[in-house]
Amino acid sequence: MDSSPAFANRMRQMRPSTIREILKVTVQPNIISFAGGLPAPELFPVAEVQAAANQVLRTAGASALQYSQSEGLRPLREWIAAEMQDRGVKTAADDVLIATGSQQILDLVGKLFLNRDDVVLTENPTYLAAIQSFQTMEARFVPVPTDSEGLIPEALPDLIRQHKPKLLYTIPNFQNPTGVTLPERRRVALAEIAARHGLTVMEDDPYGKLRYRGTNIPPVKHWDEAGRVLYASTFSKTIAPGLRTGWVVAPPEVFSRLLILKQASDLHTSSFDQHVEYTYLTTNDQAGHLGKIRQAYGERFEYMDRMLREMMPAGYTWTKPEGGMFLWITGPAGLDSLELLQRAIAHDVAFVPGRDFFPGEGGRNHMRLNFSNSTPDRIREGVRRLSELCRAG
Amino acid sequence: MDSSPAFANRMRQMRPSTIREILKVTVQPNIISFAGGLPAPELFPVAEVQAAANQVLRTAGASALQYSQSEGLRPLREWIAAEMQDRGVKTAADDVLIATGSQQILDLVGKLFLNRDDVVLTENPTYLAAIQSFQTMEARFVPVPTDSEGLIPEALPDLIRQHKPKLLYTIPNFQNPTGVTLPERRRVALAEIAARHGLTVMEDDPYGKLRYRGTNIPPVKHWDEAGRVLYASTFSKTIAPGLRTGWVVAPPEVFSRLLILKQASDLHTSSFDQHVEYTYLTTNDQAGHLGKIRQAYGERFEYMDRMLREMMPAGYTWTKPEGGMFLWITGPAGLDSLELLQRAIAHDVAFVPGRDFFPGEGGRNHMRLNFSNSTPDRIREGVRRLSELCRAG
Repeated sequence: MDSSPAFANRMRQMRPSTIREILKVTVQPNIISFAGGLPAPELFPVAEVQAAANQVLRTAGASALQYSQSEGLRPLREWIAAEMQDRGVKTAADDVLIATGSQQILDLVGKLFLNRDDVVLTENPTYLAAIQSFQTMEARFVPVPTDSEGLIPEALPDLIRQHKPKLLYTIPNFQNPTGVTLPERRRVALAEIAARHGLTVMEDDPYGKLRYRGTNIPPVKHWDEAGRVLYASTFSKTIAPGLRTGWVVAPPEVFSRLLILKQASDLHTSSFDQHVEYTYLTTNDQAGHLGKIRQAYGERFEYMDRMLREMMPAGYTWTKPEGGMFLWITGPAGLDSLELLQRAIAHDVAFVPGRDFFPGEGGRNHMRLNFSNSTPDRIREGVRRLSELCRAG
Repeated sequence: MDSSPAFANRMRQMRPSTIREILKVTVQPNIISFAGGLPAPELFPVAEVQAAANQVLRTAGASALQYSQSEGLRPLREWIAAEMQDRGVKTAADDVLIATGSQQILDLVGKLFLNRDDVVLTENPTYLAAIQSFQTMEARFVPVPTDSEGLIPEALPDLIRQHKPKLLYTIPNFQNPTGVTLPERRRVALAEIAARHGLTVMEDDPYGKLRYRGTNIPPVKHWDEAGRVLYASTFSKTIAPGLRTGWVVAPPEVFSRLLILKQASDLHTSSFDQHVEYTYLTTNDQAGHLGKIRQAYGERFEYMDRMLREMMPAGYTWTKPEGGMFLWITGPAGLDSLELLQRAIAHDVAFVPGRDFFPGEGGRNHMRLNFSNSTPDRIREGVRRLSELCRAG
C-alpha cells in the first residue's frame, strides 16, 4: 500500500510483540500465566474508585467529562509534585506533564529526541514496549554492559564518544525484565556522567513504590543538578492500569516541547480518569493501600523463589528482586526458551521468553516470570509444571 | 539540548497552537468564548454516565480497571461495527481499532504513512490539530482547491501526479473550521480517484451525527470498494470528550500495522472509559440524546446566524453549516483577524483567527466561531461586541 523504503523498513523493524500474542492464549482461565505484566486485580481499590467516580460526577459534574488542558488536571499535577518530593525530587506542578500511561511518555520522548538511526543506550535486556516505541522513530539500540547491579556507569563515556547517543533509557528500580536494582553509587555516577557529557537520561520508574525488601534509593533525578534527567512514573501499579495515567517530570525547555507533542498525540489524557484518580488519592489511605500491595507481592515473590528452589533442575538460576513484579531466569546455555514456551502452553503454563527483551540478538536461554498476578496455589502448580518441562527438555 | 538539524527543524515547524493559548484566557467566566471546539456541557449525560460507571464497577469490577487489549474492548468494537452499518459502511468488529480520541488516529496514521517531506493533501483551511499531528512526522502539506462545497475532486489527479502524496486528509461533514459539507457526487468521485490512483484517504468524521438540517450523506468510505479509505470517528461529540475515545475503521493490512503503533503509543485506551461508554450506549436512549444535541446546536446556529445578519457590518460573510459546531466568517480583504482578536479579548469576547487553520500562508481575514458551547443570551451579547469591534476596526 506504500512503496517508500523508509516505510517498509519501519514496519519490518516493528515485530508484533510475542507477549501480546501469548496473552491472547493466556486469558483462558485454565492457563497459569506468569507471562503478562499484570498487577493483582484482587488488590485494585474497586469500591474506592467507585466512590471517587460518584463524588467526581456529583461535584465536578460535566466539567469532569469536558475537554481539558493538555498538561493534565492541575490539582493532580500538584499532588504528583508533592509525591515527587517524597521520592527525593524537588519539583513543581509546572514541571509535571500527565500522559496516557507512562508508555505515552516513551512515545513523546522518542518523538522529541529521536530521528532515524539515532542511537539509544539501554540496558540489555530492557522493557520490550520501550524498544517498540523507540523503533517507531527508527532509532538504533546500543546495549550498555550490565552486571547483577544493573548498568555499569564506567562503560558509558566510551559508548558516548563512539555512538553519540541521543538518549539513555533506564529502569533503575526492579528492572523489567530482570528485577535488578541500580545501587545508589551508580545512580550518582550516572547523573554525573549525564551532566558532564550532555547525555539525556530517560529514567522510567513504574515500580519504585513496590519495594518489599531493603531500603528505598532516591531516583537518578535526585542527583540531576544539570537538568539532564527526565523522570517518568505511573499510577498503573499503585491504583490501577486501566485508568492509563502516567507522568513525566522534565526541565522547562523539554516540558514545553513534550507538551506540544502531547497535544498532537491525543489532545489530553482522560479528564474523567484524572478526576477519579485525584479524588481517590485525596480521600483514601494511599500509604495503607501500598502497604497491602507490597506485602502481597513480597509474599508472592518469596513463595515463587522457594518453589523454584525446591523444584527447578540444576543449571537454572534466577534473580532475587527487592520489589516490582518480575524475576528473570537464566537457563543452561543450550536452552531455547521459545521452544520451551510452546511446550509450556500445551501444559497450560506460560511465561515470556527472553528474546523479546533484547533489542538485538540474545535472550534464547532466558525467561521472565511475573509473580504479582498469581495466587500462591497457582504459583506452586505453575512452577511444578514448568520445572518438569525444564527437566524433560 | 540537542544539536540535530532534523530535530531543530521538527520543533520549529511545531508552532504552539494559538487556540491553546487563547483557551487559557477564555476559561475566565466573564469572557464570551466562540473560540474552543467545545460541545455543550449542559447536554452531557452526567447522570447516565454515573449510572454506567456504577454498573461497570459493580459487575465487571476489577477487570474494568486492568490492562486490556490494544485493539479495544471487544463489545464496544462490536457496537461500533453495528453503528458503522447505520452510517452506510459495511464493517466487522475486527476492522475497528479504538484509540484515545480520534486525535490519536491522526497520530497513528501519520506514523504509519508519513516520513520527512512526504506530502499530505488537505482542505485549505483544515483542522489545526491534524496539521500539528502530521507535522510531528515532518510532512509537507499541499492544499486541494476548494469551493463552497468542499474539495474539488477534479483537481486531484494533477496534484497526485505532481506531488505523489502519501495521504489525503478530509473532513467531509461540517468541516472544521468552515462548516462546509462535501456533496454525494464528490464523495463518489473521491472514492473512485483514490481507487484508481492508489491514494490513501483519511476520512475524519467527528461531527457526522450532529446534522440539524438537510439529509445525511453516506461517508466516502461507503463507496470505497478498493479499501483505500480509513474512516475515523469519536464519542467526543455524542457522549463526552473527556472520556477520550475514538475509533478507526481500516482494511486488515492497515489495521494490523496501526495496532502495533497503537500498542507502542499508549498500550491501550482507558479500560474504564471504554467500559463506561459501552454500558452507557447499551442502557440509554442514544437516539433521543442525539436528538436533543441536534436540536440545541441547530437552534444555536440559527440564532448566531440571525444575530450576525442583524449586527455585522457590510463586507463580512459566513458559512451556513447543516451540522457540526462551527461557522466560518470571511471579512474584508484588509482584515487582520489576529489583531481583531486582541481587541476582542480586551472586550471579553473570543474566536479563533483563521491563520492557524492554514498549513501554509493565508487566513488573515477569516475567523472561526463556535456556536455549540454558548447559550443564546451569550451568543447575542458576544456577536454584539464582535460586530462593534468589526465596525470600529
